[in-house]
Amino acid sequence: MKLTKSLVVGAGLTALPTLALAQDAAPGFDEIGPYIMTTLLFCMAGFLVFFMAAGFAMLEGGLVRSKNVTMQMTKNIALYSIAAIMYWLVGFNLMYPGEFNGYIGSFFVPTVLDPVGVAAEKAALDYASIGSDFFFQLVFVAATASIVSGALAERIKLWPFLIFVVVLTGFMYPISGSWKWGAGWLDAAGFQDFAGSTVVHSVGGWAALAGAIVLGPRLGKYKDGRVNPMPGSNLALATLGTFILWLGWFGFNGGSQLAMGTVGDVSDVSRIFANTNMAAAAGAVTALILTQLLYKKPDLTMVLNGALAGLVSITAEPLAPSLFGALWIGAIGGVIVVFTVPLLDKLKIDDVVGAIPVHLFAGIWGTIAVVFYNSDANLGTQLMGIIAYGVFTFVASLIVWFVLKTVMGIRVSEEDEINGLDMSELGMEAYPEFSKG
Amino acid sequence: MKLTKSLVVGAGLTALPTLALAQDAAPGFDEIGPYIMTTLLFCMAGFLVFFMAAGFAMLEGGLVRSKNVTMQMTKNIALYSIAAIMYWLVGFNLMYPGEFNGYIGSFFVPTVLDPVGVAAEKAALDYASIGSDFFFQLVFVAATASIVSGALAERIKLWPFLIFVVVLTGFMYPISGSWKWGAGWLDAAGFQDFAGSTVVHSVGGWAALAGAIVLGPRLGKYKDGRVNPMPGSNLALATLGTFILWLGWFGFNGGSQLAMGTVGDVSDVSRIFANTNMAAAAGAVTALILTQLLYKKPDLTMVLNGALAGLVSITAEPLAPSLFGALWIGAIGGVIVVFTVPLLDKLKIDDVVGAIPVHLFAGIWGTIAVVFYNSDANLGTQLMGIIAYGVFTFVASLIVWFVLKTVMGIRVSEEDEINGLDMSELGMEAYPEFSKG
Amino acid sequence: MKLTKSLVVGAGLTALPTLALAQDAAPGFDEIGPYIMTTLLFCMAGFLVFFMAAGFAMLEGGLVRSKNVTMQMTKNIALYSIAAIMYWLVGFNLMYPGEFNGYIGSFFVPTVLDPVGVAAEKAALDYASIGSDFFFQLVFVAATASIVSGALAERIKLWPFLIFVVVLTGFMYPISGSWKWGAGWLDAAGFQDFAGSTVVHSVGGWAALAGAIVLGPRLGKYKDGRVNPMPGSNLALATLGTFILWLGWFGFNGGSQLAMGTVGDVSDVSRIFANTNMAAAAGAVTALILTQLLYKKPDLTMVLNGALAGLVSITAEPLAPSLFGALWIGAIGGVIVVFTVPLLDKLKIDDVVGAIPVHLFAGIWGTIAVVFYNSDANLGTQLMGIIAYGVFTFVASLIVWFVLKTVMGIRVSEEDEINGLDMSELGMEAYPEFSKG
Repeated sequence: MKLTKSLVVGAGLTALPTLALAQDAAPGFDEIGPYIMTTLLFCMAGFLVFFMAAGFAMLEGGLVRSKNVTMQMTKNIALYSIAAIMYWLVGFNLMYPGEFNGYIGSFFVPTVLDPVGVAAEKAALDYASIGSDFFFQLVFVAATASIVSGALAERIKLWPFLIFVVVLTGFMYPISGSWKWGAGWLDAAGFQDFAGSTVVHSVGGWAALAGAIVLGPRLGKYKDGRVNPMPGSNLALATLGTFILWLGWFGFNGGSQLAMGTVGDVSDVSRIFANTNMAAAAGAVTALILTQLLYKKPDLTMVLNGALAGLVSITAEPLAPSLFGALWIGAIGGVIVVFTVPLLDKLKIDDVVGAIPVHLFAGIWGTIAVVFYNSDANLGTQLMGIIAYGVFTFVASLIVWFVLKTVMGIRVSEEDEINGLDMSELGMEAYPEFSKG
Repeated sequence: MKLTKSLVVGAGLTALPTLALAQDAAPGFDEIGPYIMTTLLFCMAGFLVFFMAAGFAMLEGGLVRSKNVTMQMTKNIALYSIAAIMYWLVGFNLMYPGEFNGYIGSFFVPTVLDPVGVAAEKAALDYASIGSDFFFQLVFVAATASIVSGALAERIKLWPFLIFVVVLTGFMYPISGSWKWGAGWLDAAGFQDFAGSTVVHSVGGWAALAGAIVLGPRLGKYKDGRVNPMPGSNLALATLGTFILWLGWFGFNGGSQLAMGTVGDVSDVSRIFANTNMAAAAGAVTALILTQLLYKKPDLTMVLNGALAGLVSITAEPLAPSLFGALWIGAIGGVIVVFTVPLLDKLKIDDVVGAIPVHLFAGIWGTIAVVFYNSDANLGTQLMGIIAYGVFTFVASLIVWFVLKTVMGIRVSEEDEINGLDMSELGMEAYPEFSKG
Repeated sequence: MKLTKSLVVGAGLTALPTLALAQDAAPGFDEIGPYIMTTLLFCMAGFLVFFMAAGFAMLEGGLVRSKNVTMQMTKNIALYSIAAIMYWLVGFNLMYPGEFNGYIGSFFVPTVLDPVGVAAEKAALDYASIGSDFFFQLVFVAATASIVSGALAERIKLWPFLIFVVVLTGFMYPISGSWKWGAGWLDAAGFQDFAGSTVVHSVGGWAALAGAIVLGPRLGKYKDGRVNPMPGSNLALATLGTFILWLGWFGFNGGSQLAMGTVGDVSDVSRIFANTNMAAAAGAVTALILTQLLYKKPDLTMVLNGALAGLVSITAEPLAPSLFGALWIGAIGGVIVVFTVPLLDKLKIDDVVGAIPVHLFAGIWGTIAVVFYNSDANLGTQLMGIIAYGVFTFVASLIVWFVLKTVMGIRVSEEDEINGLDMSELGMEAYPEFSKG
């Protein structure tokens, strides 16, 4: 609904004195109810999206080989934690600067919450508490970093990766995010991206793509013109991760309604839940049928990624489509995954978990698909937004990856890669007792 | 409280114009608050019940042998996705047809959500949004299919199973569900089933039982008059699954209050939470003590199933009992599991995860137990409902299983079963690196 | 905000008739909205904290060796279930006795919920439903018992442990809990502990410490003056457990606001969410950096425990600090873990999962840290509270452990310990198919 997320935090407070609050009586629910409900929405959606950090960790931990699982766990909990700190220190106010030039806000303005027990007349009654808004926005940025972690698994060093996370979550994502959700130039141009097919997912995908190119494929992945499969070590874990991500997506898309205090808003939140679920289901079923048809055997990892691609596809516009709209938009997400995972392999771009097809390619598709159901969107502007986010994130990421490569190296030694990152970088195995077959 | 779930969706809208909404002022919270709270309840309970899909997947994935884990994951994510699509395409409006003959509603009336940003005067202010109601109902049907998937694991082919899921979630469950929750003939007769001990759980159990009989036991399970134990491959995963199911059950039972906008309703929701928790705890403790007494060693899988049986037992009436009532009802659920798991084995009915004792037998018990605390219930009607659901679901399932068996076969070859469904049907192992002991 | 948790349950109802409820009109949202919102808060926070039982199970299951995983699962589901029953039978009304002598309330007064569909004029409109309050308090006590289970893993017998849980959750925790949250003598003295750094976490830690001393270290843990590392069997599971605990902590701390029906309260809940998240992130990052500096290799288990220590540290005062305050309070939690885990080993106190550093030491730190941001707190009273809880819980636990040791023995035989508790006590392996390397 709203064009900008949480803009009110920067601008709303000054406008509030004009709200006619009775001076000597506590404001009633007609006045405070929407604020309470929307703040609750952000808290609830926030904890759901927070849990996506666990979902990414499990998905990635299940899809890497067992010798790299400890590392994947370390990266995931570390990247979330770093994102939380950087988004407080820089990101939030850089992304939602209030009035700004539309391209870039102010750096290093740490987030300040509402005072304890904020009075109604001091609160943004037409929106929500700063704490809830900050928390909700923060869990989004972590998702972006998780996308990168999956694609570059099994060969990237820990610390260069974490430094990239610092830059991505503190600077790159908030700057480009401000263009749309901070009411910047792309928002002014009419670009539509409800919950972040582009702003979140394809940004993560572009950063991952740049990293995968600079880093190169895993040893032995592409050899003698053949693609060497490197099966994940724990598909139960990968499935759990997918279900957790699906769960979190109700918060991701539902919370992006940014309001729950009216009949229309709460109904819209539920509409988004239903559509989000449908798109995921359609993506999964499509991948299931397609892999059966193409390979004669259904491929579970494709089904998991199909569900995720369905989710990414509906993220740019989870509200406007009918359930049937959500179905076909999500289904095309599933098609995209099935066809682009091998395509990346042909290009010798080694994406360990399929993050680039899921988050970048389906993210682009979802952003385009907005035009079918949202009359405020037009294809030209959507493409402009896709390109703007792509160019900025890809180029900035390339630069950061190259600098990191030059300064400290980003890839472990061949020996370390063969032995696994767990022993070489961390000295600790994830499954020390299970002998390898 | 309410006899019928979501009936208002079919019937409520026409009645709404009589609601005296001020024409020129936004309706206040006294008018819209209940709608907002109930819609929120459905969204929240819905995502909790959604997560039960992950719970079933983990429980089943932990209780099958490692050679069948990928298949179990595939079935679980596929069945949920298929249920989501079928329930939109057929099920929801078949189950909640509004006025109908009481036995069977209309087919192929896909669900249509409220319009975006629905106005208060167009919304079902005495209930909730269609999106939230649809989503909440949809996650229930998926649970039914999950029950079947566990019982028939390790030997059923993927596609016949999924076709059964299509029939179950699109037709069988919605038709029988309409008898009670769609205000059909059993509802008119006074049958009581608050959250679905019968409507959901024993329906899943009957379908599983029919399948287990038609399919036959796993190779070597019953040999030379002995029951050959086939221990699950990952009890940590099975425990996680049980905890996730327990978590989801707060939504399952709590959401079935179908209202949260009054003091009495929200208090009842919390009462249901407390009772649901107590029944699960009692089922677990009972199974723990009983297996210690009977076998001298506590049996974790029995404890897990004891908790689940406690949950199923309280599901038909989670509101009316006192905490002590919930305790003993749940405890009997635990007793049922401990004694009927071996009973099934004696009958050479091979239920891999104990789904039939948990969902069917405890479901019957829970439906009977309603008479102890709910004065609207009488034993005769409860038995009639149990039998009606049993006969319909068991017979219809038998027919579908036989047709599938005849037309395409439902069981993998002996060789494939020995090698495991993962390699034979999917070509992909769940734990490829862990050598088998 | 409030000094006492749920005191109103005992005392509030009698005061309610003075509330001027219209006799002939349903009360409006201005009157019932806060009750609905706070009851919802307890339900939501309650299911989040419930899920921490799964988090503890996964964390502990991942950090023990595979031969003890089934036992750890059994203990965790059993302890939660026992806690649920004991807290109903004794604990809740012992902990919240209403008017009492300030030291100890009444025993064996089982909890009675509000009647079904309680009328507004009978409900505690200034608080929440009994069911929601009971459920929320109940999930807290289970956390205390989980702490003990982790520390004493891999050598304690099942039944003595569960008997200890009966005493801890039914008597010890509720008695000491009443001193602060039941409006007892420590509350009167001005002791501050918002969500239980001391009341919950250090109580669990003291009970674990007493148990670890009485029980002694695992065989071979301290040999020839060296600490023999016994790596956990499944770090993916341990990471999942940590993420689940982190998720649950939003409910743990956020729900402890005990109100959500005003602008100030809901904003405070969100403020607590943001601070809780920040403290966890800071603890994790601190442990990551410190282990890199100290050992040249980051240690995932330290990072996980660092996050948890950050969470425990902020639990005594998650509301008052700024985000920066939460950051440094949580970071010190991370420091504490990194330095006290080896310290315990020097003292030959064998804490399998690091529960004592995380819950006891960081709990003490968090309770002290209250003085920096909460002007109602003073250091002397905080120390008095810490000592009072410590002396009572440690001495009472020592006595119970010694009695159990004398009467039935608490430790498995050497042979059973070497073979693993799964086979010796339960006859069931968690991962029967994965051969041990």
